[in-house]
Amino acid sequence: MGKQIRLNAFDINAAMHNAHGLWKHPESERHRYKDLKYWVELARLLERGKFDALFLADVFGFYDVYKGSRDAALRDAIQVPINDPSLLIPTMAYETEHLCFAVTVPTTYEHPYAHARRMTTLDHLTGGRIGWNVVTSFLPSAARNFGLEKMIGHDERYDIADEYMEVVYKLWEGSWEDGAVVRDAARGVYTDPAKVHEIDHRGRHCRLPGPHLSEPSPQRTPVLYQAGASARGRAFAAKHAECVFIDGHSFESMKFYVDDIRAQAVRHGRQPDDVQVYMALSTVVGRTSAEAEEKFRELTRLASEEGPQALYGGYTGIDLSRGAPDDVLAYRNTDHGQTVMARFTTMAEKPLTYGEVVEKVKKIGGRAVVLTGSAEEVADRMQEWAEKTGIDGFNLGHLVTPSSLKDFVDLVVPILQERGVYKTEYAPGTMREKLFGAGRSRLPERHPGAGYRR
Amino acid sequence: MGKQIRLNAFDINAAMHNAHGLWKHPESERHRYKDLKYWVELARLLERGKFDALFLADVFGFYDVYKGSRDAALRDAIQVPINDPSLLIPTMAYETEHLCFAVTVPTTYEHPYAHARRMTTLDHLTGGRIGWNVVTSFLPSAARNFGLEKMIGHDERYDIADEYMEVVYKLWEGSWEDGAVVRDAARGVYTDPAKVHEIDHRGRHCRLPGPHLSEPSPQRTPVLYQAGASARGRAFAAKHAECVFIDGHSFESMKFYVDDIRAQAVRHGRQPDDVQVYMALSTVVGRTSAEAEEKFRELTRLASEEGPQALYGGYTGIDLSRGAPDDVLAYRNTDHGQTVMARFTTMAEKPLTYGEVVEKVKKIGGRAVVLTGSAEEVADRMQEWAEKTGIDGFNLGHLVTPSSLKDFVDLVVPILQERGVYKTEYAPGTMREKLFGAGRSRLPERHPGAGYRR
Repeated sequence: MGKQIRLNAFDINAAMHNAHGLWKHPESERHRYKDLKYWVELARLLERGKFDALFLADVFGFYDVYKGSRDAALRDAIQVPINDPSLLIPTMAYETEHLCFAVTVPTTYEHPYAHARRMTTLDHLTGGRIGWNVVTSFLPSAARNFGLEKMIGHDERYDIADEYMEVVYKLWEGSWEDGAVVRDAARGVYTDPAKVHEIDHRGRHCRLPGPHLSEPSPQRTPVLYQAGASARGRAFAAKHAECVFIDGHSFESMKFYVDDIRAQAVRHGRQPDDVQVYMALSTVVGRTSAEAEEKFRELTRLASEEGPQALYGGYTGIDLSRGAPDDVLAYRNTDHGQTVMARFTTMAEKPLTYGEVVEKVKKIGGRAVVLTGSAEEVADRMQEWAEKTGIDGFNLGHLVTPSSLKDFVDLVVPILQERGVYKTEYAPGTMREKLFGAGRSRLPERHPGAGYRR
Repeated sequence: MGKQIRLNAFDINAAMHNAHGLWKHPESERHRYKDLKYWVELARLLERGKFDALFLADVFGFYDVYKGSRDAALRDAIQVPINDPSLLIPTMAYETEHLCFAVTVPTTYEHPYAHARRMTTLDHLTGGRIGWNVVTSFLPSAARNFGLEKMIGHDERYDIADEYMEVVYKLWEGSWEDGAVVRDAARGVYTDPAKVHEIDHRGRHCRLPGPHLSEPSPQRTPVLYQAGASARGRAFAAKHAECVFIDGHSFESMKFYVDDIRAQAVRHGRQPDDVQVYMALSTVVGRTSAEAEEKFRELTRLASEEGPQALYGGYTGIDLSRGAPDDVLAYRNTDHGQTVMARFTTMAEKPLTYGEVVEKVKKIGGRAVVLTGSAEEVADRMQEWAEKTGIDGFNLGHLVTPSSLKDFVDLVVPILQERGVYKTEYAPGTMREKLFGAGRSRLPERHPGAGYRR
């Protein structure tokens, strides 16, 4: 049997995610993002396709680097308008049985005391089907709206995030003992106060005495996701993350990343497969190769000119309007700290001109690998990626919603199942059990978060 | 036809709300608060009973004044363990058609940029069925967990809240024009940038350039609730609130409050009925008076000794363990600023001894008026309160959940309907339309929030 493949769907509670311009597609229902029915339909589709999770990205600001303005982002709905992602999850969980959810929440802007309670609440309401994508947030416009004069530097954001993790581990793992809630009517004791503890955190960035406000949820700590491409980001992920996601560019670079993150995890006392790696992917599937190619050409006709440059500007801090097409683009360190991402984004092994970068970023699907072909061809290529790189699965973005994902579920999933590389039934239990095995609802002892247990 | 009565249900996403000790009741299903099914059942019950809204309280800390410890609160589940309330609302809205929701969020601890997006998201997802209960938060233990060395003073909290309201009005009312989202595929314009504006807020407590992240929701500004008993709190409510709730003690004091808040609202350029007043109420209903009295005696047998003193300590800052039963309790101003509430709570017109206060706070139902009787008797008394005081309706708490509310819906609602003082059908539209009339989805021009429109 071939290497098993796992799937997350990659989305955002906004008018558009990364598929610039494709809100114009006649089949797009993307403008229904404000309607819970849209999300319930999506969740049911994903559960029919046996996806492990729906992964919700988030941003707290505007992509306003390109031409020094947010106008291009607004015009092309580049992750704006955007709504809160967490509020979508309970209803999707209520209307499904197995599908899990990972939600992006920045450590830079949400206070850990309120955030810890929100995640515990989500874990309770979903029956333990929740993950948290830990981000430090990269948009200067977000920093300004949260009262910061300027963006906190990239590495300092990770230092803050490290302390933030310590605080939430203490709240989730160390504050309420198992069995604290006894609900003993005869003795008149709902919670045994001897089993509820202050965490007394006094750190560099935060003082937080506790205790946690909520009783323990099925997983306590949600399944931890992270996407860090930089050296500091990879180090953070290797220590904390249980699932990482990353753009893919070549078999070699992806294999290097997978091997590196597992090796770093081992140096933290973890096991190699304690970290699952998901590669960003979009697919254009037809009944034949020719039909898929024709679909891809149609999508390319709808691609935008300025939207993807706005997206790239937000990710990298680089304004592509500031150079002539033949000028060579010199990467530099910015407060975004996104030089690495800029390089990844353009898959460049040598310096590129502005014109070359613009052509690359305009490619449909953005930073993700796009596989175009018949269902068999797409399945072949997915298996090839998995086998050659050691990734655990894919983070599947939408191009046209919901038809891209419908095509995938209807056409590709059955082939992967027939080939024995994709599950036909969900595993029971919580998200962590579904991903890592029965009996593992909580962080394993070797995870740093477990060190804060009493 | 008699004066029309409106109903809110009053609840909290915690193991227990104000009905100390009644989690021990054999019919209590309160421990299911972590399960969305519990809340969906409650929402359907309330919609069957034509309640306007479910009002969700919240606290971000522990009731730890009594004996200088949180132990009594934990033992009797005095609003702890507690989960996030907002995350319950979308699913209840999805499973109902008309029921509206008001959620408590403190201006002291949630950043206005994130909060404004959450409320807009809720307004979108509920189709305009959302209200926000504006609180400044009163628990010192919450302040400590949000990084404050000591509680911000009572009046300063309201000054911060006033600026906070200005910021969120600017985001909700003034940032995105109607028609900003055009979704014009031919021109390639999703949002017209010329209709999305920075708010450029530079205040004493907050700098926030904007724009708002979300497109306008059905109501833009959620229906504004407030509960302020102090002079500063009443002034705040008279300016901003569309619904206020208050404990009731006597016809005279309630009528004074109702007349005062309406008169103050008029001085802000508003109309008297721009502010609806809801009085806290609990009911014990039987098929006969005798059956109700027997139920009440059973509830009283389950009442707790220490839990209500913990609750009182949290509300007032007064530790009832620190005086002998015969000592006179001297009210003093505390950082809680709750002297007024302390007086209200005990309904005292003269100084009371510690022992007398303890007996009063142990009364089942806490600070709320409790009506015990047959359905006809309870309906009579509700009508009497409404007619003699000018209140618009009641904020109905639970004693035993869900049986208290089931009894009310099954037995009292039909009588109020027969008497023509309670609606038999919901009005269509958003929450603000249901409460204030067709065509009024948004704040009226005379409300201060409307002044921030462009």
